Amino acid sequence: MYFQTQKLINEIVPGEPDPFAANALQEGLGGQFGEMRTMMQYLFQSFNFRGPLTQYKDLIQAVAVEEISHVELIATTIARLLDGAPGYQPSGDVPGAGGATPLNSILGKGNIHHFLVGAQGALPVDAAGNPWSGSYVYNSGNLVLDLLYNLMLEATGRTQKCRIYEMSANKTLRATVAYLIVRDEVHEKVYAKALESLGVDWGKTLPIPNFDASKYPEVKALYDKGIGDVQYTFRLDGSQAGAIFNGKSPFNDGTTVSTSDQAPEGYPIPQAPERLEEFAPGLTPELMELAQAAAKLATSGATV
Amino acid sequence: MYFQTQKLINEIVPGEPDPFAANALQEGLGGQFGEMRTMMQYLFQSFNFRGPLTQYKDLIQAVAVEEISHVELIATTIARLLDGAPGYQPSGDVPGAGGATPLNSILGKGNIHHFLVGAQGALPVDAAGNPWSGSYVYNSGNLVLDLLYNLMLEATGRTQKCRIYEMSANKTLRATVAYLIVRDEVHEKVYAKALESLGVDWGKTLPIPNFDASKYPEVKALYDKGIGDVQYTFRLDGSQAGAIFNGKSPFNDGTTVSTSDQAPEGYPIPQAPERLEEFAPGLTPELMELAQAAAKLATSGATV
Amino acid sequence: MYFQTQKLINEIVPGEPDPFAANALQEGLGGQFGEMRTMMQYLFQSFNFRGPLTQYKDLIQAVAVEEISHVELIATTIARLLDGAPGYQPSGDVPGAGGATPLNSILGKGNIHHFLVGAQGALPVDAAGNPWSGSYVYNSGNLVLDLLYNLMLEATGRTQKCRIYEMSANKTLRATVAYLIVRDEVHEKVYAKALESLGVDWGKTLPIPNFDASKYPEVKALYDKGIGDVQYTFRLDGSQAGAIFNGKSPFNDGTTVSTSDQAPEGYPIPQAPERLEEFAPGLTPELMELAQAAAKLATSGATV
Amino acid sequence: MYFQTQKLINEIVPGEPDPFAANALQEGLGGQFGEMRTMMQYLFQSFNFRGPLTQYKDLIQAVAVEEISHVELIATTIARLLDGAPGYQPSGDVPGAGGATPLNSILGKGNIHHFLVGAQGALPVDAAGNPWSGSYVYNSGNLVLDLLYNLMLEATGRTQKCRIYEMSANKTLRATVAYLIVRDEVHEKVYAKALESLGVDWGKTLPIPNFDASKYPEVKALYDKGIGDVQYTFRLDGSQAGAIFNGKSPFNDGTTVSTSDQAPEGYPIPQAPERLEEFAPGLTPELMELAQAAAKLATSGATV
Amino acid sequence: MYFQTQKLINEIVPGEPDPFAANALQEGLGGQFGEMRTMMQYLFQSFNFRGPLTQYKDLIQAVAVEEISHVELIATTIARLLDGAPGYQPSGDVPGAGGATPLNSILGKGNIHHFLVGAQGALPVDAAGNPWSGSYVYNSGNLVLDLLYNLMLEATGRTQKCRIYEMSANKTLRATVAYLIVRDEVHEKVYAKALESLGVDWGKTLPIPNFDASKYPEVKALYDKGIGDVQYTFRLDGSQAGAIFNGKSPFNDGTTVSTSDQAPEGYPIPQAPERLEEFAPGLTPELMELAQAAAKLATSGATV
Amino acid sequence: MYFQTQKLINEIVPGEPDPFAANALQEGLGGQFGEMRTMMQYLFQSFNFRGPLTQYKDLIQAVAVEEISHVELIATTIARLLDGAPGYQPSGDVPGAGGATPLNSILGKGNIHHFLVGAQGALPVDAAGNPWSGSYVYNSGNLVLDLLYNLMLEATGRTQKCRIYEMSANKTLRATVAYLIVRDEVHEKVYAKALESLGVDWGKTLPIPNFDASKYPEVKALYDKGIGDVQYTFRLDGSQAGAIFNGKSPFNDGTTVSTSDQAPEGYPIPQAPERLEEFAPGLTPELMELAQAAAKLATSGATV
Repeated sequence: MYFQTQKLINEIVPGEPDPFAANALQEGLGGQFGEMRTMMQYLFQSFNFRGPLTQYKDLIQAVAVEEISHVELIATTIARLLDGAPGYQPSGDVPGAGGATPLNSILGKGNIHHFLVGAQGALPVDAAGNPWSGSYVYNSGNLVLDLLYNLMLEATGRTQKCRIYEMSANKTLRATVAYLIVRDEVHEKVYAKALESLGVDWGKTLPIPNFDASKYPEVKALYDKGIGDVQYTFRLDGSQAGAIFNGKSPFNDGTTVSTSDQAPEGYPIPQAPERLEEFAPGLTPELMELAQAAAKLATSGATV
Repeated sequence: MYFQTQKLINEIVPGEPDPFAANALQEGLGGQFGEMRTMMQYLFQSFNFRGPLTQYKDLIQAVAVEEISHVELIATTIARLLDGAPGYQPSGDVPGAGGATPLNSILGKGNIHHFLVGAQGALPVDAAGNPWSGSYVYNSGNLVLDLLYNLMLEATGRTQKCRIYEMSANKTLRATVAYLIVRDEVHEKVYAKALESLGVDWGKTLPIPNFDASKYPEVKALYDKGIGDVQYTFRLDGSQAGAIFNGKSPFNDGTTVSTSDQAPEGYPIPQAPERLEEFAPGLTPELMELAQAAAKLATSGATV
Repeated sequence: MYFQTQKLINEIVPGEPDPFAANALQEGLGGQFGEMRTMMQYLFQSFNFRGPLTQYKDLIQAVAVEEISHVELIATTIARLLDGAPGYQPSGDVPGAGGATPLNSILGKGNIHHFLVGAQGALPVDAAGNPWSGSYVYNSGNLVLDLLYNLMLEATGRTQKCRIYEMSANKTLRATVAYLIVRDEVHEKVYAKALESLGVDWGKTLPIPNFDASKYPEVKALYDKGIGDVQYTFRLDGSQAGAIFNGKSPFNDGTTVSTSDQAPEGYPIPQAPERLEEFAPGLTPELMELAQAAAKLATSGATV
Repeated sequence: MYFQTQKLINEIVPGEPDPFAANALQEGLGGQFGEMRTMMQYLFQSFNFRGPLTQYKDLIQAVAVEEISHVELIATTIARLLDGAPGYQPSGDVPGAGGATPLNSILGKGNIHHFLVGAQGALPVDAAGNPWSGSYVYNSGNLVLDLLYNLMLEATGRTQKCRIYEMSANKTLRATVAYLIVRDEVHEKVYAKALESLGVDWGKTLPIPNFDASKYPEVKALYDKGIGDVQYTFRLDGSQAGAIFNGKSPFNDGTTVSTSDQAPEGYPIPQAPERLEEFAPGLTPELMELAQAAAKLATSGATV
Repeated sequence: MYFQTQKLINEIVPGEPDPFAANALQEGLGGQFGEMRTMMQYLFQSFNFRGPLTQYKDLIQAVAVEEISHVELIATTIARLLDGAPGYQPSGDVPGAGGATPLNSILGKGNIHHFLVGAQGALPVDAAGNPWSGSYVYNSGNLVLDLLYNLMLEATGRTQKCRIYEMSANKTLRATVAYLIVRDEVHEKVYAKALESLGVDWGKTLPIPNFDASKYPEVKALYDKGIGDVQYTFRLDGSQAGAIFNGKSPFNDGTTVSTSDQAPEGYPIPQAPERLEEFAPGLTPELMELAQAAAKLATSGATV
Repeated sequence: MYFQTQKLINEIVPGEPDPFAANALQEGLGGQFGEMRTMMQYLFQSFNFRGPLTQYKDLIQAVAVEEISHVELIATTIARLLDGAPGYQPSGDVPGAGGATPLNSILGKGNIHHFLVGAQGALPVDAAGNPWSGSYVYNSGNLVLDLLYNLMLEATGRTQKCRIYEMSANKTLRATVAYLIVRDEVHEKVYAKALESLGVDWGKTLPIPNFDASKYPEVKALYDKGIGDVQYTFRLDGSQAGAIFNGKSPFNDGTTVSTSDQAPEGYPIPQAPERLEEFAPGLTPELMELAQAAAKLATSGATV
């Protein structure tokens, strides 16, 4: 069973709207190696888990639940990057009144669906516009194979996010991408460590890509906060994940890793403004008033 | 941010393995109107929510989080229905030894991928084998439109699950399907009530399909437990969903609805057995021993 | 602009319900070389037609409009073949009451979506369940190329329908398939003749497959009615298609072809019964009464 | 059975070629909520219609047939917007002679397939390039559910077309988009009225989006022509659709609605010029002459 | 540049036609982890290879070229398994003459497209009928990552083929599946060895699944022929692949591996009979004669 | 069985990096009518070939094998066009060090996946980003039909490549496109000639498009080399393809065609540089050294 708090797992740094940046980030959300995929793949692997070594299930599911929060983080970041992009041209309170074209400037920038199908919000697609597909989910049922795939998946995610980092200096994009690079690294450690517990020695091949991400200033700041070595379980009733993810790092760099039943403290979720030109949320003053009256009535306990 | 307990939101009733039943249930998991879709659609609608009436966001997200637990419930049910189907023909401890064909009898039954790509586990596909697609997710950003779609979506889910009910008397399938029929009904009420708060009067058109599901014995038992009128929020830090979902039922049948910050108590998750013929989890005694040694070491606090 | 009469272009012969036959026919409806494809391909080719030789546009569009009626014919045939299949097990007036399983016997027969997603009706998919795709539509803009593709398309349609003919002796299926074989043949002639007008001589290669379909008794009966040599234009305001499709047959078999501005007389559309087990149409007696009262009011001319 | 006249349902206003405008319009043609979808969805719903209340079938099919004409209108508009875009650089009569690059300037504008796969013509894809899919078609067989979906579908279409309106001031685009906004509004009324006949009262929630489109000058001009309140049946042999769509508007704005067996008068279809750089239609003078000789022969009644 | 001989890389053992066996084998041909995928993935990885360590490119491309021969082997095996299945009911020389249904018995068996779209031949789809997709191809450009994915890919292929082995005792299927199990094992060694050259020690985790396939009699026979330890390069102009794949096996089982510039000797390709009921090849005696006359003329050196 | 030499079938002319040119070329690689499709279609047609006229199989397979080399040529050309595009901004040896954005300028140019999913390499997708699909492959089993489709396929490929030619004057693109135009022309001749052997006379309709490509200077240079009339078999053990493709050209232009068992001499494959900003190949100096040591060891014959 799943629960939620109204917190984001990392802060969204305010910055300039940027449809190109929003579109590049879509790969990290709805791409073949993005957060929707890790979330669904690890959920399916834990639902279908077999055999008595449930500490591996606990570990996979800990990452799975974290990924739901990553989906929330990156989707919200994309929505913020689109907010008011490509530059709202107000024409009083009426969308397009007198023939205005507030949405004209987005033609040819990023993904037109952000403005035409969604209302300047995130979409479950990749950076080339392909919808997310269930065929991405890998779950062979063979534990070694699933762990090997998961390691490769996190390494690919980290590679792609490093490339996104190099595509844009937008502060909002960078804050979220840097955070995800660090967490993908931890998840590389998770699956590498799990394979190590089955006898593999990784030598000097990890991390993939074999690159010290502290070269990126935003990543270094996060390392300094200590989030590069710990896996939270997000479990309200205890977990055995620490039976695997503990001790020497599989990166063989002299560091150690650990599991924590705590969760990060979290950050407030920014409230999104109305966008009149998108008819979102599209309530007239009359409907707004009706909604508020209904809410008052509902909470008064009266039965209409 | 999201959290988890190792509980199922409803009980999985033990019963006979049945690949056909498992395949029919896949529509409820990975179909265009199944639980993966409601879960992702409501999550995206809450991530991209705009404007000050956040009680609607709270309500949508309450259902979203419940849907994650539904995905878990239906996926686990499918896995149990596949377990040992089509009847394992043991040949000692070695899969297919001497040329045995333990998986032969599944040819032509349900979805061959349950046994060939997965290891008798659930897949993110529908009952015709189509993978789940991100193009299913609807989120126009217009609140009335999103609520209208959500109502239609839950009504379609309820219709399809009633049809699945009529396809099989398998007890394991029926227990899960009956539970989901009841909850889809509650979610019809949620979205109808939200539209009612914006001025719609549904007369006698609801529920859809316009059918008293207490005619199904398994459903009646659940009504009697009182789960047909309440929406849990699954929020650890409070929610305003009750400002909408409270009072007279939009089904206009004389009942009332309410919101609760409690969650259901939950049921234990059955442990899945190894399936040698599927190489799942596929650990040899040697690897199993290694894993246990590593776990002992990790929890001993030693740094290897 | 398009118009309609409530007639079918060919008769649907009553017969036994048969989910397998219905599913095989889906290839002719929603398959890559089925009627939805010919309809959309020829419509797009006529919308995008270039240059002064509009008699070719008129000819392509004449076939396009006929194909809409073919889509109607084959979809209605499929719905009739599904009606009451796999054998309705009535349980009073309440679907599944007391736990009955009226839909059980369809598991493993044909396409489960016919009973689970649709209500024993046709779907826009092929016989393997793949949804129809816009990527099928071919329209290069080069006239010779488009005609060559269209000839190949009709020849493939004829081949597949001959194979469907050999899959089932169901009378309802055969009546529709035989009709479509004959019309595909005429359309082979249409495009072969158009290419002949540009200099190609087909020798003895046509028809494709090179097979005298009068060997099929149902086809012979249709030939005898004379529908194997004429193309109707379905145009209410005149057409130049006859400037191409007239005179010697491109099959070089001694016959002639012609164009007619008349349309076939048509056949009544059978009315489909309610299916309670599918919740279709799902109106309760109360809603039925309401609908009739509203209709009376509307036609009385009163303004409510 | 279906018929055609060589007329467009609305006028295509001549204007500047514009590949971006053409691409945005593709959403209205081949998008998930575009005209191909409404056309196919309503056709399937009428083919598979069940039960005695055939006035609902007549109404759904009336809209279905209108949608074929909308597909024709929007496809032709797109083709005209592409014509000569991105600016034909003639190089004598020979495409690309001497190494010229007449198509160079379209790189990075709109959808490259408009110039590479098609010959500056419309495609069955959406504005992000995804091909139209049969999985879009919704037809549950439950009448209330189908009507509810159709209402939501038209409301989504209207929302997206309002957004397209705000994306471009191109006169050709605007004329077609304004017309479709008005007709989507009428279709909202059609399905809302049908649901009203089954007991729903919409209060002030309609239209969706809740916006008076007469703020758009091109839309106001069409309202003034009186096309915002009537549904034509396009039936040559009479229809019962008027038994539902008649009387008080479901928008509760004091207006009335009505059904007419007449059709609009229509507008001539502009003839598309040859595009040498696209090899469309690609006939050499020699082939052109051959075609004309063949046509003369065919209409002379001689049998070659 | 690529070349071919008219030989199969392994023998196709004659056996009973079996549409179910043919369909299960499709996963190995057109599935996400089948031979078309390994072939295209390794080809793309070698086309896009970067950097000076070209021995890795040589090794990847050696496997790529072998995979083309595997695609040929498995496709031809499927075609043979379909030949004459489900039992041709001859009716003279005319398909379906007098209304016969030679193809009737395939309904509900395997994939109907084998008999309806193809002519009892292999298709580029998986065992659930999904067409092969370019989105399967993985090529990150990062050498370690690509090798890790390739190892996982071969291990998944081996797992799936072991499951197919357990699904059918059909001799034709078994001969081909056993061969591919052995070769997938060698390719596991290839990629594991390449990663070993970069520092990884696999301990006892390999092979995946961790299972001695010599338990399958058909596999044991192939091991005894010595094809389980060698990688051929299929290069006509020399290769450096042996600089990696040589020496101690990465399975750590005391065996060694090696690279050979020789190719296996190969087996004759069985000639496929005509299938009249499929109109394949569909030449009439008249066309057959024409073809032979043309061939005689062509080889006579005369210029027509 | 298949073999390879480390040669390209045509020269890649060095030129400017150009992401737009690379993206346009993707249609020729992974498009519905591109080289991956011709390659797979002809391979499947030859694997599934039926009947005694094996000279047709030999001819189809000769083209199939040539197409593998075309896939190699066009993929390598795309990779070279992307190399260093959009202009590498070196920041020492560390990707993105200090927050640099070497990949920024590609946003909005061509396909972002070239830089985000691949490492400036070719992808199995078309110019609009759609992945290649197995549903493209056409193989009806009917020889005339397959030949007719193949002719249409080559004619479409030639048309699209002529359009690509007109989109860019980039020398690297032009060299490869011109070569493929000439070869598509030869393949038009191959299939037209094969149909001629069955009785068709093409008159003056061929080539399609009906355009003398020697108007393109790069094409003329290739004609002058004599590669426009010959089909190589790429067969190491002899072929009967010459029994069909020999003698008078089916273009009826006074030329002749012939078959050769020789292959073209080929051109060296350019070595691709490392791209640090893409982490490709991503080996650190430490790993590089390890690889070289391993290679030395392997070739020394020692068993580690």
